[in-house]
Amino acid sequence: MPVDGWVRAVRVQKEITFLNINDGSSLQSLQIVARPDLDIRGITFGSAVEIWGKLVQSPHKKQSIELLADKIRLVGACNSVDLPFKIKERHSLEYIRQFPHLRCKTNVFSSLLRIRSEASAAFHSFFKDNGFVHIHTPIITSNDCEGAGELFQIEPASKTAEKQNNAHFFDVPSFLTVSGQLHLEVMMGAFTEVYTFGPTFRAENSQTRRHLAEFYMVEAELAFTESLKDIMEVMENLFKSATSFILSKSPDDVELFHKYVAPGQKERVEQMLKNSFQVLSYTEAIDVLQRSMETFKYEPKWGCDLQTEHENYLVEYCGNIPVFVVNYPYDIKPFYARDNQDGPQHTVAAVDLLVPGIGELCGGSLREERLDLLQSRLKQHGLKDTYQWYEELRQFGSVPHGGFGLGFERYLQCILGVENIKDVIPFPRFSHSCLL
Amino acid sequence: MPVDGWVRAVRVQKEITFLNINDGSSLQSLQIVARPDLDIRGITFGSAVEIWGKLVQSPHKKQSIELLADKIRLVGACNSVDLPFKIKERHSLEYIRQFPHLRCKTNVFSSLLRIRSEASAAFHSFFKDNGFVHIHTPIITSNDCEGAGELFQIEPASKTAEKQNNAHFFDVPSFLTVSGQLHLEVMMGAFTEVYTFGPTFRAENSQTRRHLAEFYMVEAELAFTESLKDIMEVMENLFKSATSFILSKSPDDVELFHKYVAPGQKERVEQMLKNSFQVLSYTEAIDVLQRSMETFKYEPKWGCDLQTEHENYLVEYCGNIPVFVVNYPYDIKPFYARDNQDGPQHTVAAVDLLVPGIGELCGGSLREERLDLLQSRLKQHGLKDTYQWYEELRQFGSVPHGGFGLGFERYLQCILGVENIKDVIPFPRFSHSCLL
Repeated sequence: MPVDGWVRAVRVQKEITFLNINDGSSLQSLQIVARPDLDIRGITFGSAVEIWGKLVQSPHKKQSIELLADKIRLVGACNSVDLPFKIKERHSLEYIRQFPHLRCKTNVFSSLLRIRSEASAAFHSFFKDNGFVHIHTPIITSNDCEGAGELFQIEPASKTAEKQNNAHFFDVPSFLTVSGQLHLEVMMGAFTEVYTFGPTFRAENSQTRRHLAEFYMVEAELAFTESLKDIMEVMENLFKSATSFILSKSPDDVELFHKYVAPGQKERVEQMLKNSFQVLSYTEAIDVLQRSMETFKYEPKWGCDLQTEHENYLVEYCGNIPVFVVNYPYDIKPFYARDNQDGPQHTVAAVDLLVPGIGELCGGSLREERLDLLQSRLKQHGLKDTYQWYEELRQFGSVPHGGFGLGFERYLQCILGVENIKDVIPFPRFSHSCLL
Repeated sequence: MPVDGWVRAVRVQKEITFLNINDGSSLQSLQIVARPDLDIRGITFGSAVEIWGKLVQSPHKKQSIELLADKIRLVGACNSVDLPFKIKERHSLEYIRQFPHLRCKTNVFSSLLRIRSEASAAFHSFFKDNGFVHIHTPIITSNDCEGAGELFQIEPASKTAEKQNNAHFFDVPSFLTVSGQLHLEVMMGAFTEVYTFGPTFRAENSQTRRHLAEFYMVEAELAFTESLKDIMEVMENLFKSATSFILSKSPDDVELFHKYVAPGQKERVEQMLKNSFQVLSYTEAIDVLQRSMETFKYEPKWGCDLQTEHENYLVEYCGNIPVFVVNYPYDIKPFYARDNQDGPQHTVAAVDLLVPGIGELCGGSLREERLDLLQSRLKQHGLKDTYQWYEELRQFGSVPHGGFGLGFERYLQCILGVENIKDVIPFPRFSHSCLL
């Protein structure tokens, strides 16, 4: 069997030519030793080659084995003049981002893709090992979940062109999902633990280093749960177990990021793994912010959402350990969050997980399972008709339950120390950009 | 620790009450034995309960263990008058489909959801075990892949409402993906084996038992492959290995389908697993169809697509074993299919896998890796500008490669014997219907 791959380096010496070839299975390339009588015309950086030979122990320290070539075949030549990546040059993540059809050819992005693949497997493993059933929640929905952010609406392309806006394809306006939560909650009528892991969407115009129009969310929902602590325990275990899994499965790929992209990140991740996550109530968090010497752009005030600057301050305040902020004001959380029935500062059992370098990584809550409280909340929001089916879930063996969502790309940013979210997804979509 | 679940049966006897409770972890319910002094008021079919007691060996043959209850708590009552499912009644799949928010409460649909979860894991396992890297191909795309079927177009909801159709959110028209293939092919510049598994979309008006507007596809792409046989081998191994995995992980759930939904299906699946898949060239297939005694609605003719009736005939002709049909006419396959450069009947290296009861389950091909042939094909289709990036993939270390896509819901139909595709997905979307 020949060895197949792409040439990552060529070193021509007097007697011998060395080629490094890589097949994408790891960061490490295979060193090929080519005698001068072998035909290597046309073989350059980026070429695809097929090589027959003998694997031997390498005399060099850099690798344990190398291939003594008997025959080298050029499978596909590389136009290295037009290739935007140059041999031995280290290109910035921002630079390679311009070439979504070619950036997998760089070391850094092929490492990212392998890590992303392992991270997906890690999340599935965690849930499977803990008895969760995987549910494919729908992408197209007639609900708008929480009224959270702007939605994408869909129609057949031909119809859009003709502008016949009278009849919808599905008879009702339909949107791309912003969260699978409400559909996961359906399963709280027969399953005790479910999860979903798929794409979600926001039509926000904002172009920040933490937002995409299309991104992946891991969402879980647990039945017979009356305490936010149960939810927080799953969140913390998921984060730690997935991270340990990835560190053990992809040490070389992760090291590339921790060494060249975000020096110091290795230690920061170790800190997160070995310490218990902190817990602050929203009220405490506001108090901490108000007592701080920091000048914030947005004044911290009870009853207002936390801004990124506040999140970052709180994480630092907690020693750069991830921190759960719990029990948010009733008035700033969606209709489904469970009423704590407290006062005078009225709160709901909602939780956000803030992590170093990112801010909000997860959001979750207990869900209002009590029919009367849910009904009055829906009425108050004018959502009674839209969510009749959701209300009905509370009439047939309703159970206390709760869950959370974790932003998969933010998670990758957090463990790898990648500044921009566009660099941890193969094909980033954001306003004004949908390449390929 | 109490046992939590939903009541699936209540049998009140003179001395004792028996409850069957189920928590969604398996088809099997737990039998609860309740002494007459326990308060079971309000506990009916569908109630959610929490029970403390002692697990003991059961004296009955039907179960190995049962729970002697010390305390029973009604967690959530069930309005059994309005619940559309009645105790001890077997409802048809078609009937329960009307209640997407409640159907998980039925035995058959909770079995389906567990099987679907195991099947997803099975596909991921197969690829992981064989060294494939998992790539999240995008849902939103500015390509229309193959011009295959009608597309959904997307815009922010606010924009749709205002009908400001001048500027697009992404600056270009954007669509929901019909296939991740072209994006997987990007990875053929650095990886030898990749796959994706996610939702794909068609805005077709057709309402058949095999079509959905939103469905899941498993797609794989292999580099350094010059023969369709390599692709077919992966398809056959994937089918057989995933099926064996599911049969071994979910025997009870699968048995429910094979016993009550599709009697005889167990044997049909065994047949598929133990025999080698058949192979017919398209030309042979047309010949078989033309020589048959069958009256077809569409006359089988070289150069035309196979219709469902033709597919079904070919599968029967091959003894109800899945059959690969290979080498399709050049003119009916998309631009990317690899030219066989034969004649006078000009074909491409494309393959469809037809399976009993369903027809087409998979479609695949070698991809045209030769720049000159690809360029002339793109030109001929008027696609030169749109696919400039795709053409560029062939300039930087292009390799012979190929791949396929498998319809996940059709696969579930095939192994379970489910007639209608709407019954193997949690929330089916099709024209005129987008419930929840």
